This record gives sequence, structure tokens and C-alpha cells, in this order.
Amino acid sequence: MDSTFSALRINPHRLQSNFAALSAIGATPEGGVNRPALNTAHLEARQWFRQRAMEAGLDFRVDSAGNHSALLTCTDPAAPTLLLGSHLDSVPNGGRFDGALGVLAALEVLCTVKDFGLTLPVNLEAIDFTDEEGTLVGLLGSAALAGHLTPQDLQSPRGGRDALLDGLACAGLTETGLLAARRDPATLAGYLELHIEQGPRLIQVGADIGVVTAIVGIASHRLAFTGRADHAGTTPMPDRLDAAQGAAAFTLAVRQMVMDEFPECVANVGALHLEPGAFNIVPARAVLALECRSADPSIFDPLEAALLERARLEAERFGLGLEIEFLGKHAPAPMSALAQQAITEAAEALDLRHIPLASGAGHDAQSLAPLCPAGMIFVPSVGGASHAPREFTEWQDCINGANVLLHAALRIGLHIS
Amino acid sequence: MDSTFSALRINPHRLQSNFAALSAIGATPEGGVNRPALNTAHLEARQWFRQRAMEAGLDFRVDSAGNHSALLTCTDPAAPTLLLGSHLDSVPNGGRFDGALGVLAALEVLCTVKDFGLTLPVNLEAIDFTDEEGTLVGLLGSAALAGHLTPQDLQSPRGGRDALLDGLACAGLTETGLLAARRDPATLAGYLELHIEQGPRLIQVGADIGVVTAIVGIASHRLAFTGRADHAGTTPMPDRLDAAQGAAAFTLAVRQMVMDEFPECVANVGALHLEPGAFNIVPARAVLALECRSADPSIFDPLEAALLERARLEAERFGLGLEIEFLGKHAPAPMSALAQQAITEAAEALDLRHIPLASGAGHDAQSLAPLCPAGMIFVPSVGGASHAPREFTEWQDCINGANVLLHAALRIGLHIS
Repeated sequence: MDSTFSALRINPHRLQSNFAALSAIGATPEGGVNRPALNTAHLEARQWFRQRAMEAGLDFRVDSAGNHSALLTCTDPAAPTLLLGSHLDSVPNGGRFDGALGVLAALEVLCTVKDFGLTLPVNLEAIDFTDEEGTLVGLLGSAALAGHLTPQDLQSPRGGRDALLDGLACAGLTETGLLAARRDPATLAGYLELHIEQGPRLIQVGADIGVVTAIVGIASHRLAFTGRADHAGTTPMPDRLDAAQGAAAFTLAVRQMVMDEFPECVANVGALHLEPGAFNIVPARAVLALECRSADPSIFDPLEAALLERARLEAERFGLGLEIEFLGKHAPAPMSALAQQAITEAAEALDLRHIPLASGAGHDAQSLAPLCPAGMIFVPSVGGASHAPREFTEWQDCINGANVLLHAALRIGLHIS
Repeated sequence: MDSTFSALRINPHRLQSNFAALSAIGATPEGGVNRPALNTAHLEARQWFRQRAMEAGLDFRVDSAGNHSALLTCTDPAAPTLLLGSHLDSVPNGGRFDGALGVLAALEVLCTVKDFGLTLPVNLEAIDFTDEEGTLVGLLGSAALAGHLTPQDLQSPRGGRDALLDGLACAGLTETGLLAARRDPATLAGYLELHIEQGPRLIQVGADIGVVTAIVGIASHRLAFTGRADHAGTTPMPDRLDAAQGAAAFTLAVRQMVMDEFPECVANVGALHLEPGAFNIVPARAVLALECRSADPSIFDPLEAALLERARLEAERFGLGLEIEFLGKHAPAPMSALAQQAITEAAEALDLRHIPLASGAGHDAQSLAPLCPAGMIFVPSVGGASHAPREFTEWQDCINGANVLLHAALRIGLHIS
């Protein structure tokens, strides 16, 4: 690598100052942020990002999916663009680092390259994707940019159709715009994203940097076990068709099956409610939210099939009906070898301990993976915590991650040339 | 028994006409009624009851707990009163028979006795108790009349304190009045209640009449299993403290324990919800509604204790915390031998097939049982259905039940003299 570049480092003071300013937008008393996509705080954070980019002398662009980008263009009008980014939205009552760190580090990389007057053969773009967390539609902005978004995705969104329409109206976006936001893959040199790990593994093994090998596939279903409402005092136990029994047996089975038969995977029954839901009425209906994840494409489909088959067996065992509503699926997304190599070399050049690992969480990088060389850099999460106000990453780890992002970007940018 | 009385029968046409008129008040499109205590329809039903009693030439009385009574007084001013009754309120979206049949049959007994100009040595009182179903406070009116109601019962009512205060205000009632509604047991000759079985047993064995031996005790608890919210993608399965696992294991255990170890009892997990309740967050908290019932005082406490101990074990097994909130308890209430005998003899005199059985549901008779000879008459419920619009009892069974009520009342009235 060019020795001109190898001594380059991001400006940690500017990064930290930006992080503090952004963390104040939508700040919660518990120390986190509440910026679900397109809420007031989220729109304010995007406004702040635009302002900061303009002040840094960068161009700014908002596409028809609402993705916000700071741009550092090169002199060649035909040059491809290397995207660096993440997202400024959070889960409700989330943490300060998830997404925000990646956008700020991307902005910092552009500022650093600009400060040092480097000329790269690619455009650099620091992008903030719309609604990564799926308050309205999971990975909305990156899916739109990748051209994966379908009208069907918008008809039955995870957060409900009304919330989607309200959110779009607030942000001045339209469904037509979302469906037209596709970028031509030929114009993209790659995508790199810095993110907190959101898990315990880097700290468990004492590593500074995670080189992400793949992003897990996620399948979501809503299952309803259906029985019969009866008086809970007068109906003998053996005569009941108690929907809660099927749901309970399945909830236990999910955990045990994954641990025994799919040890590299995870699954969760994250919501469950009984209807009609009274002390003295045998539950007629038990509705639960099921999610399963695997980074291995050869295991992902068998995992999903095995869980659904088990739900059928548990329903049958208790004489219940079963309704399965498929809510969506992202295939496992391997990260590109080129990106993994660039990140690994950057970590080594910076003398940082690194390990390869799969991401158990979904990320915008999985939308980009089919289009261009995509890669992710993880930094340690204290206690593995995420999606919660206690989410925390040591400041030195944030700096390390931003420097790895800088050097991986330089490597890919130079490789392209 | 006096042969003057033995040929007496209630007037089935008047009973049916009253039943049709009452069923129209708060009628639902599904064929049931929606008369939760002190809602508009319930107050209208009480108004109708008062009107019908006045038209029949009976006296009418409303006590300070809102209990509504039609009265047929005897000539002896020192005579005790034989109460006959049930309740006009329903569960939300309930059936036409539960409670209503008992009040109408009681009114019909008074009208029959009056029509025939019989002179009894007791006053007869057809009483409609306030809020038997516990929309606000379970067995509110009968507990108040029995003097069991405490200020504590009114501080944390099942339906919430605000609903109680609103309901009382609508009905012109006060807490002071509720707490002062006690009747002197010395003035009571007994209490008889006709009710639908709300279960399948009478029809299963081909009986016309159930002679209730006891009313089950009911204990209610809210249990919260507490774990830790974690990212459901990035937290390995063995590292989770998943509150849903404890709740699920307990829900299965409740059914199995009751069937194996307490075969004459029932228990129900009727409500369950997970917090925060998202697809991608490991549940931090699982809150469930537990109810258990037994008619046998020697089994009731051990049943409750065994279930709570099992909850502790399941919490421990999954590394979870457990919070137990006690919500209330009614002890099992044996029906009086005198009342059971009167009902049995009445059924035999009417040539009706009868069996003894325990009531799995709570009833106002359990409030009265400690005060005076109390008894209940059950008539068959088609399909065992209750607390639902499909609740149904054949009309001949309603007539049979009202005639048994009449003759059991005459027997007790004459026995008193």
C-alpha cells in the first residue's frame, strides 16, 4: 500500500464531538436514544447529519428512498462509488452506538480523506440508510437502493400499513419513490460498514476487530395455535382444547431444538399472547412471534422447516389447529472475499487483534452484498448489550473501528483503480 | 308435604315471556347479551326487573350495595326471609342464561306463590346481586350483603380502581354504602339459587337437575418470570435468560400436575404476555394469569401451594426471577345439607332425574353459605358452554329448574315454620 496513505488516521476528537452531538438527539433519561425511523428525533438526526456534512464542505444527496448521503467526489466523472455507511434510526428506546457509529465513522473517513487532500480513483459516499431497524419495513432504505423492494413489501409491512404511510408522509417520501430508488450496481465499487458487534464474542476472545464473514439469514413467522374458549372452572382438564398448551410446548421446543440440532443458529419466541385472555377462560387462541437465524445457507432452510414442523406436531399433540403466517425472510449474506481481505489487512496494518465472525444481526450490508463487494467491521460491545440504553463500546474501540474503515476503504479504492 | 302445595307449578308462559324481554336488553348480534355490571344495559335490565316486580304487585327494595329485590312478605313481622336469586349482570359478550335465569325463576316463584294466595311462614325475596361476574369486584353484592366485603377489596379491585369508582357513580352507589350493606343472618331463612351448570356433566349422564354439593374455592395469582432482554440474533442460546421459557414450562406443568396429582381440581393459565414483546428481543419478562379451583377444602390449599412451588422451580431451572402477586381467594363453600335435601326431594316429587355435583364456577351462593342454609340447583348447559353467546339451555330444563326452585323453597319455608 502507498506509504502516503499508511500513516493516515481519522481525527478522534472530531469523531467524538460528532458522536456526542448526535447522541443528544432523541436522548432518553436512561442514557440511550429513541429514534425509530422517521420519528421527530430521527428526522432531526438526519437534518443534523446534512448540516455537518455541508459544514465539512461535502456534497449532500437524498435519494427517493430517503437515504441521506454525504459525498466526496473524485475528478473522474466515470468513477464508481465506494459506499460507507450504516443508519441513524434506532429501535424504540435503543442505544447510542447501533448504526450511529457507522454513519459517523463513514463521515469521518470522508472528512479525513478530504483534510489530507488525497485523490482517490473512486467517489466516497457516507450513507445513512432509511429504517434499518424495521420500525416500518426492515432494511427499507438499503433494499430500495439495491432494487429488492417490492410493492408487496409495502402492502403488509412489519409495523403496519398505516404507520408506513404516516411515516412516509412525515418524511416527504412516497411509495413510488421507494420503488424507484435502485442504484445501478455498475456504479458501485463496494460497501463497507462499521458496526458494534451487539454480542459478546469479541470481548470473550480479547479481539479488537471482527471481520464479518456473513450476515445471518432471518425468517419471521407469526403462529397461531387455535383451540376452544371454555369456562375454566367447569370444563374438566381432559376436555379442554387449550391453545396455550401448544404455544408453551412449542416455545420450549424451539430453544431445545436449536441448542441440540442447530447449535450455530438462534431462534426466538419474542411475543406471545392468549385470547380471550381472562383468568377464567381457557385460551382459545395463542399467537406467537417466531424468528430464526442462520449464517449458513445450507442450514437456514432446514432450520426454518424443522421449527414449523415442530409447531405442527405440538398443535396435533394438544388437538389444536395451527395457522402459520409467513412474515418475511432474508437469505444469509456472505460478505465478499475482497472486503474481508481489505478489512483484515487494515486491522493488521493498524496492529489490531482481529477474528472472523458471522453477524447474528441483520444489517444494510446484506442488501448490498448481491450488488457489489460488501464487508462489515465489528467492534466490541460491552456485555454484548444492544437495542437497549446500556449498549456501550469503549471509545478506543470506536476509534480503532473508524481507522479500520478508513484503511479498508483506501485498500478497496486503490484496488479498484 | 302439604298436598295443597304439591300440585303447584310455575307459569311457564310468563317465565318465557319475561326471559324473552330480558334477553333483549343488551342483546348482541351473536345471540348473547353484553351486560357487564353497571353498564347501561345492566342498569336497564335492573330497571326492567323493578318494573316487572311492581306490575306483579310485589314490593321492591334496593339495598346500599345496589342489590335489587322483589319482596313477598308474610303476615308475621318477625318472620325470617328466604332469599331466592342470582344476578342480571353478564361477562362481556356473554350468554342469556347465566344469572338471568335464576333471577327470573326467583321472581316467577314469588308470582306463583302470590297467584295461588299461599300463606308461608317466611318472607320470600327474589334478589338480583350486584356484579356477580366480577367486572368490578367478584361477587360484590352478595359479599356486601354477607358482610364479607372489606375496604381492601375496594382498594385493589380486579377490574381496576377507576372502573369501580366510575361504575359506582353511574349506579348512584358509594363505597360507604357497600361496606354497610350487611344483613343480619338471624333474619335469613336460607338462600336458593337456580343456575345453568356451565359444564357438560348433567348432559353426559342424562340428568335433569344437579343438586350442588359445594362451590369450588378459587385462588388467583399473577406471576411474572423475569429474565434479561437481549438481542435475539447475537446472543447465543445458552447465554440467554429467556423469561418465556419459565412461563412456557410452567404453563405445561400446570395442566399436567392438576391431571396427575389433583384430578378433581382445575387450573388455568388464561393470559400470558411477553415483554418487551418484539420478534428480535429475548423476552425479559413473562407475565401470566393463574387461577386454580377445588371444591374440597382439604385439597384447595395444597393445590395452590403446589402450583406456586412449581413456578419457583421452573424459574430456577431457567435462571429466572419470579414475582408472585396474590389477587384473591374464595374458600370452597359446601352447600347446606338442609338445602341439598330440599332440592333433592323437590326433584323427586317432580319426577326429575337428579345427581349431586360440585360447582366448578363461583356463585353468589358461596357468599351466603356461611350465613344461612344455602343451596343451588343446576340445569343442563348444551355443550357445557357458558360465558359465551352460544350458551344455551333447553326451555323444558329452564321450567324444570324453576319448578324445583319453587318446591325446594316451599320445603325450606315450611321446615322453618
